[in-house]
Amino acid sequence: MAYKTDIEIAREANKKPIQEIGKKLGISEKDLVPYGHDKAKISAEFIEQSKKNKSGKLILVTAINPTPAGEGKTTTTVGLGDGLNRIGKNAMICIREASLGPCFGMKGGAAGGGMAQVVPMEDMNLHFTGDFHAITSAHNLLSAMIDNHIYWGNELEIDQRRVTWKRVMDMNDRALRDIVTSLGGVPNGFPRQAGFDITVASEVMAILCLALDLQDLEKRLGDIIVAYRRDRTPVYCRDIKADGAMTVLLKDAMQPNLVQTLENNAAFVHGGPFANIAHGCNSVVATKTALKLTDYVVTEAGFGADLGAEKFMNIKCRKADLAPSVVVLVATVRAMKMNGGVAKADLGTENVAAVRDGCPNLGRHIENLKSFGVPVVVAINHFVTDTDAEVDAIKEFVAAQGSEAILSKHWEFGSEGSADLATRVAEIADADMANFAPIYPDDMRLMEKIETIAKRIYRADEVLADKKIRSQLKDWEEQGYGDLPVCMAKTQYSFSTDPNLRGAPTGHSLPIREVRLSAGAGFIVVVCGEIMTMPGLPRVPSSEAICLNADNQIDGLF
Amino acid sequence: MAYKTDIEIAREANKKPIQEIGKKLGISEKDLVPYGHDKAKISAEFIEQSKKNKSGKLILVTAINPTPAGEGKTTTTVGLGDGLNRIGKNAMICIREASLGPCFGMKGGAAGGGMAQVVPMEDMNLHFTGDFHAITSAHNLLSAMIDNHIYWGNELEIDQRRVTWKRVMDMNDRALRDIVTSLGGVPNGFPRQAGFDITVASEVMAILCLALDLQDLEKRLGDIIVAYRRDRTPVYCRDIKADGAMTVLLKDAMQPNLVQTLENNAAFVHGGPFANIAHGCNSVVATKTALKLTDYVVTEAGFGADLGAEKFMNIKCRKADLAPSVVVLVATVRAMKMNGGVAKADLGTENVAAVRDGCPNLGRHIENLKSFGVPVVVAINHFVTDTDAEVDAIKEFVAAQGSEAILSKHWEFGSEGSADLATRVAEIADADMANFAPIYPDDMRLMEKIETIAKRIYRADEVLADKKIRSQLKDWEEQGYGDLPVCMAKTQYSFSTDPNLRGAPTGHSLPIREVRLSAGAGFIVVVCGEIMTMPGLPRVPSSEAICLNADNQIDGLF
Repeated sequence: MAYKTDIEIAREANKKPIQEIGKKLGISEKDLVPYGHDKAKISAEFIEQSKKNKSGKLILVTAINPTPAGEGKTTTTVGLGDGLNRIGKNAMICIREASLGPCFGMKGGAAGGGMAQVVPMEDMNLHFTGDFHAITSAHNLLSAMIDNHIYWGNELEIDQRRVTWKRVMDMNDRALRDIVTSLGGVPNGFPRQAGFDITVASEVMAILCLALDLQDLEKRLGDIIVAYRRDRTPVYCRDIKADGAMTVLLKDAMQPNLVQTLENNAAFVHGGPFANIAHGCNSVVATKTALKLTDYVVTEAGFGADLGAEKFMNIKCRKADLAPSVVVLVATVRAMKMNGGVAKADLGTENVAAVRDGCPNLGRHIENLKSFGVPVVVAINHFVTDTDAEVDAIKEFVAAQGSEAILSKHWEFGSEGSADLATRVAEIADADMANFAPIYPDDMRLMEKIETIAKRIYRADEVLADKKIRSQLKDWEEQGYGDLPVCMAKTQYSFSTDPNLRGAPTGHSLPIREVRLSAGAGFIVVVCGEIMTMPGLPRVPSSEAICLNADNQIDGLF
Repeated sequence: MAYKTDIEIAREANKKPIQEIGKKLGISEKDLVPYGHDKAKISAEFIEQSKKNKSGKLILVTAINPTPAGEGKTTTTVGLGDGLNRIGKNAMICIREASLGPCFGMKGGAAGGGMAQVVPMEDMNLHFTGDFHAITSAHNLLSAMIDNHIYWGNELEIDQRRVTWKRVMDMNDRALRDIVTSLGGVPNGFPRQAGFDITVASEVMAILCLALDLQDLEKRLGDIIVAYRRDRTPVYCRDIKADGAMTVLLKDAMQPNLVQTLENNAAFVHGGPFANIAHGCNSVVATKTALKLTDYVVTEAGFGADLGAEKFMNIKCRKADLAPSVVVLVATVRAMKMNGGVAKADLGTENVAAVRDGCPNLGRHIENLKSFGVPVVVAINHFVTDTDAEVDAIKEFVAAQGSEAILSKHWEFGSEGSADLATRVAEIADADMANFAPIYPDDMRLMEKIETIAKRIYRADEVLADKKIRSQLKDWEEQGYGDLPVCMAKTQYSFSTDPNLRGAPTGHSLPIREVRLSAGAGFIVVVCGEIMTMPGLPRVPSSEAICLNADNQIDGLF
């Protein structure tokens, strides 16, 4: 049987006017700010009013460590949301927005797949409602104002070697990683080393996704450290007087975007911070608003549970006063086989032993997630080549861990395929079994916070950090940043810092290469290994194949 | 009497839902793609269908050479449009979109002023419907793909010293004018000199504004020359395979944006190419569509008539098969006084002699405009400090030229103040007196085209161009670019290349510094003097004062 491609399915979607989707959430046409006929933002006034409603249950979808086989975390999030609606529950989903960079590189859409997609898929993978462009503009306005301040006399005495605020572009452009600016003589300023990150790596993105409202946004933007003086005292965005104009540029971007699933259920798609140097989840405003509008909110976090769920719990939930009622851990037969040592080319062949060999990765994540005090359900995201014996192997393994694995066929059948999963997830959520708490308190020392994650989540024996890093952390504690959470930046492919170490490794070390203070976002980034904040394009970028077809439809997005 | 500021007036506007504005133009809700409640794009399908309608009359608003006193070209365009509607005509206006760069620098809005404004003013000066962001993305995707092509082996044999395609940002950022990219070793590519222009200077902007439809857009994008090989043969955007994806990124940006005036009359605000290195008018698609929807379309061109109107006639009208029925030349008493030698601080004092001394600049523009075969009306854009004697001095001067000057008080009174102007303009348009033709034919030699403009419009005695420039023009003629129009880039403050030479100078020379081929846009840029394609911010940029007030309204835009 030949399956349709994601874009073919998306094009055939029977979309309802976005006003109808809004109406189901109780949003009047006045409070729904349309962007075309199938996208809208929600007014700040409506969000403010909705705060008096009682909150629904929060369901987090996370996954095992990603493999090249793909796990389908967003697909499962969409499928579960549709499944909940199918069984009569009032539910919606909250996911992240896509970046243009990967879209023109090699990664396809971030809108789910198969019969579990959010639409309009093309718009979501292109400009959408312009949020990322607004973030790019706000970020670069600050950059321009810093260099302009230096140009006109540098009253703040910025050490030009210590400007930490780079520029951003929503593009995979390796040529901009490391540049020298302000060449060309007196009218162009003082030459200095600089660079661009991709927009999703901007601290402005992280701030937008953690800010509670426009006032909080402006305060956090003002708190950004942009440079240091010769005496190492920090220069803030507020000193540059950019925080007001940046807030103005981000005014609309702060409002969550409403779209719909293929089954016409509501979805907020809002924000998209990197899951390494930032916390990797959709915006707090979207999640909190969704909880006021429906009984169940399904959301997801970036990468595997060791990075994404850990940050969701320790950063987003802590800061926004959120608590998940249940966690859905996505696994696939194919990914288990890859963890069990099978090559990608051989994934189509039944191999129950390999599935079993790969399961310890899954088991480790189950254990970790339970340590946050939340019940865990494993969703086996069904691929058409999976055999019953392989699926059963996972189910048996998970049962032996004291949890439950449920096969879900939302990719192929939409909510019909995810109804079982939805039923069980709703039961657990309704049973109020969760007793959520972050795994470290605010007032723990920064180094101890890192060690807690390294030992309890990654199962490393030790954290390696030289004196410079340890004294930097101490300095920040003295400056009043000691109560911030830590944001781990390490490879997503392993519990360890070695991307090739699959399964459930132990006995490794966690070497810290660098620590960075994101004072506006409100966390300390702990960089373990190489982290790429400006990707490059592959030899044959997917942009070469993206074009309009004879009917002016977009081809080449996938 | 204290007057309200533009933003105060704009905030109090009694806006109608954009669907109502569209309905008056015959646009159904399906064909109106809303961006919020007060902005919309028009569907490509509707535009295609409207082509069968008969065309209305085109009215161009242009001005004398700009002075620091301000002329109010956009204000007059809006006022005239409202005036035509007031006297019972079916009319709309077409103007350009604003750039974020100047908005955060020192220049205020581009949406008119006083009682003659287009709203929503704040949105129009910020992200609006995202067109400029789309242009920035499309431009920079090509940039990234060029460096990526070189990185992966440079199969096209691009001479890295001769990459002519820069990057763009919609920001005043002098630090990016002249940079070195791809530093940092092997993974970041081959270091080379590069730079950023402001987005409005992008050839993509010029192309979007001249393209007839998406197919023409894609073809023109493909025609862009991005670099040269060692043997000086050109490398095209098409060779880089970026034209398809760029078209996809520009799909929505190609559709005109509908907004309204303070008096609820329709306005297309679409595109905004530089008026020096590009042609400086709103999009062809917007103008042509507007002509199919109303009986009168009022539009404007950048800078003074020597640059803006010349390019409007010789480039836009020629390429898009448009012909203006009448030209409105905007002048002010204050600007005449500045041309007559009065300092800005003394403009508030009556000085009839200075007005008379300044009038030759106006007279020269009248003569020039008539040479295109179109009737000319002078609009005296009234300032509250103007005296009757000063106004009469202009009227007498214009009458002596065989034309007519009409006082218009739209800034203060809206359409009530511009009804006289509108009445006369409509009469002239209805009389079909125009016999429009560009002032040079396609098949004239490129150098001769330049000389024609220099002598007939600027009244220069001679064109100075060294051998290198002359042979470059010949080479382009041999390569098949000889039938392109020329796009003059010179100071807007004078008929000459000396910005301080006001009035109606003669006997000067026009030195050509450089010629550039914009093969996608379809013109040869002739650079006379320094042209800044990436502005800088002033010592105290206006962004320092832009912020949200306690009611979350935007303060500091003006």
